[in-house]
Amino acid sequence: MWFNQHTMSALASFQALARECNSIQTTAATLGWDQETYMPQEAGRFRAEQLSWLSARSHELATSGRWRDLLEQALAETGEADGTARRDLLEMKRRFELATKLPVELVARDTQSSSLAKRAWADARKANDFSRFLPHLQALVDINREKAELWGYAEEPYDALLACFERGSSTARLTEEFDILRPALAEIAKAAVEHSQSRYRPLPAGPYPISAQQAFNEKIARDIGYSFTSGRIDTTTHPFCTTLGPRDVRLTTRYDESDFCSSLFGVLHEAGHGMYEQGLPQEHPGMASCDAVSLGIHESQSRLWENHVGRSRAFWEKWYPVACDHFPQLQGHSLDDFMTHVHQVEFTPIRVESDEATYDLHILLRFELERGMFRRDFSLADLPAVWDESFEKLFGFRPQDPAHGCLQDIHWSMGAYGYFPTYTLGNLNASQLMHTAMKQPDLARAFDRADYAPLLQWLRQHIHQQGALYDPAELMEMATGLKPQARFHLEYLRGRYVG
Amino acid sequence: MWFNQHTMSALASFQALARECNSIQTTAATLGWDQETYMPQEAGRFRAEQLSWLSARSHELATSGRWRDLLEQALAETGEADGTARRDLLEMKRRFELATKLPVELVARDTQSSSLAKRAWADARKANDFSRFLPHLQALVDINREKAELWGYAEEPYDALLACFERGSSTARLTEEFDILRPALAEIAKAAVEHSQSRYRPLPAGPYPISAQQAFNEKIARDIGYSFTSGRIDTTTHPFCTTLGPRDVRLTTRYDESDFCSSLFGVLHEAGHGMYEQGLPQEHPGMASCDAVSLGIHESQSRLWENHVGRSRAFWEKWYPVACDHFPQLQGHSLDDFMTHVHQVEFTPIRVESDEATYDLHILLRFELERGMFRRDFSLADLPAVWDESFEKLFGFRPQDPAHGCLQDIHWSMGAYGYFPTYTLGNLNASQLMHTAMKQPDLARAFDRADYAPLLQWLRQHIHQQGALYDPAELMEMATGLKPQARFHLEYLRGRYVG
Repeated sequence: MWFNQHTMSALASFQALARECNSIQTTAATLGWDQETYMPQEAGRFRAEQLSWLSARSHELATSGRWRDLLEQALAETGEADGTARRDLLEMKRRFELATKLPVELVARDTQSSSLAKRAWADARKANDFSRFLPHLQALVDINREKAELWGYAEEPYDALLACFERGSSTARLTEEFDILRPALAEIAKAAVEHSQSRYRPLPAGPYPISAQQAFNEKIARDIGYSFTSGRIDTTTHPFCTTLGPRDVRLTTRYDESDFCSSLFGVLHEAGHGMYEQGLPQEHPGMASCDAVSLGIHESQSRLWENHVGRSRAFWEKWYPVACDHFPQLQGHSLDDFMTHVHQVEFTPIRVESDEATYDLHILLRFELERGMFRRDFSLADLPAVWDESFEKLFGFRPQDPAHGCLQDIHWSMGAYGYFPTYTLGNLNASQLMHTAMKQPDLARAFDRADYAPLLQWLRQHIHQQGALYDPAELMEMATGLKPQARFHLEYLRGRYVG
Repeated sequence: MWFNQHTMSALASFQALARECNSIQTTAATLGWDQETYMPQEAGRFRAEQLSWLSARSHELATSGRWRDLLEQALAETGEADGTARRDLLEMKRRFELATKLPVELVARDTQSSSLAKRAWADARKANDFSRFLPHLQALVDINREKAELWGYAEEPYDALLACFERGSSTARLTEEFDILRPALAEIAKAAVEHSQSRYRPLPAGPYPISAQQAFNEKIARDIGYSFTSGRIDTTTHPFCTTLGPRDVRLTTRYDESDFCSSLFGVLHEAGHGMYEQGLPQEHPGMASCDAVSLGIHESQSRLWENHVGRSRAFWEKWYPVACDHFPQLQGHSLDDFMTHVHQVEFTPIRVESDEATYDLHILLRFELERGMFRRDFSLADLPAVWDESFEKLFGFRPQDPAHGCLQDIHWSMGAYGYFPTYTLGNLNASQLMHTAMKQPDLARAFDRADYAPLLQWLRQHIHQQGALYDPAELMEMATGLKPQARFHLEYLRGRYVG
């Protein structure tokens, strides 16, 4: 193609640059996907070189003078009036500033520290010895405090970290929301555990063959609207969803031959992420208007399909007979009995093993501790004790050791502070979106016969197609007519789990 | 990593640059592999953008002033004495000149013309109408004549094209070699067809389930020495072998449920390519010393494992019982009968459907016609008539139509002239290498019990570990003590196919 650069608008030129950057980043995503799925064992070392070259190129481009200049020119060109192009560019500018406010030296130190910390954490967790991780935690908290100072914040450093993952959120707002949640959730969880224990009927014994699980999962993923002409499902140790290009959004799951629900709910969760990515506008890859807005909105989509849809009675009225065809040992085990498995609730010290009725308690704990770290409310050396004490207040028992306590999650070793709260924001958003969507009589009737086309259509219009043009809280208010709030999630949990 | 660029030797700096270029190229190879194996259907358009960005970056780097300067400095640093470093750099210089002698305008025209020609060719072949392809063929032949003039040649333009694929080869030498081959091959082919027809026993009816084929093929690939910790086998429409990094060499094959030999011989062929790539030196990816030397040597490795090993009696004495375990319908069908399938010979107008006893005749035909095109021996409009006439002289019958004649192969539509002869060079090299290797008594004894470790070891030492430090003909002479020659291949074919 031959065209004269000077005849293009600054906006079009900037979009072309953003597209180029997106092309590099999705190339890296493709290599990352391959690394987790099919890459032969010995290829890892060179793969790291390939990925690091790509990451250097996309960083170079997205922090370049050319990027800044075209962005400024495009902004000048669009004028002051609030419109899609202007919102798109302003969000790109916010991202540019996040990326360029940190000096190269700090970024390098950050990368190196978290790389060392990740190894130290794995080691510490294995040895059940917090002291091995402590110096790394200290270094990363210090670095993140530095980053927060450079990025700037309204009230406290933790605000700046939160805003990395959830644009427009603040410590104060989250504290307020989570303070409402805490006692209500603790009460719901306690009642839910009792209710579940009194009714629970175990799943018939396996094996549930992997090939049958794959066929069953694919049928369901296709039926709820995940596109296999722009996606696929592979197998990995840790399930994920990744975007390799505008029409290439892939999921992974893992299989447990003793419980087909494990892979299925993984697929529903990742397909929720995947349908969000598949539903984003596709015109200008790399621009905010074609990108997901935040982790809290992303997680709302995965939780909605995993829990609101996948654990509903209507869903299983349609799919349980199909499950019985795929897994003959289910025959004779009633739908009612099966639903006690889908709704099983238990207290566990481990976040990733917990169910939706207790999950958010794990998050509230982490939020409280992260906020405390950055406020210097306690010495980091005391983290295990502070964790155990706070955990006991919420759950009524103490974890047996640090591996089941403050060493269980990888996030802090990766330098991700302010990430955890987005999981609960996802749950709150999902419940509020479902509450609103179900007010549409046609959509609700379709939901009751496990036809999800109207629900997906509604999400496409109100969430997916909006890209990252609005702050998550604005987006939620536009979609639901109300500010984001906790009560819908509490209502949902009570309705489902408190007998 | 922080180091002072000035303390590195020019050689080390150049090696780092070559490694960077290799990292970009293998990234593109990874995207290419994914495109053929797992990529969802709608992802194709953006994938083309990703690939074109990578290709622009690697071309930019490998034709840059920095590349040229470091290469010159490194050459100056190594001095005049013939040694590995000097050979390595001289070959890099030859490649640099090939890449930089063509003006950007010509490269763009070449890319565009072959892209149009490929579509026109597919269309013409489908419609069985050569006239639709003719203007594209004319354009590509003209462009390749231009390229030959810019690259330079000793005697005729076709020399320059040959040298792209087979360093150091010449039209004169190939003509001489192929003139010896032609009558002998025609005679062998005729006798082989008669011999095969008189003995042929069809394979028991399928289906040969794909999963059993996969298990069988993998067992064999592993046994002959293809590494699965730096490789894997996937499924594609057209089998290939591709290198995604120094320890990442992947194969593909396709499955025919009525004939398990189809995928197996595909795997043996691609594993031959793969073991060559896996056996190359790994120290300096992107340098000639760690790269394959030519197509004719590459093809010698694939043909050697596919034919000399895979069609040998000793191989099947070991593996036929295993085949009978995997495919129960073989039980009762004797090894002797099965060998008539493995050694089946037939005349066909289609090169890719032909067997090893007739294959080279197809290549001799193409060589003769390519040479004629670039010598303007005939008008391109007459190609179909010239093809049919030459074909009849070799095979004794005429192809039924252009789709079975001069339109059957994709190569000319891709602008690849001088590529075909390397297939036959591969066959000749394979036979000469085997002839030499089998003079080692231990190796020959191992071969007779289907133990290929000594053969692979011999190939590693004499071929793989030499990278691209020597011209293919030099390499062959170093490995076998003799200049490359046709007689070993003729002996081999006579021994195997003429009763």
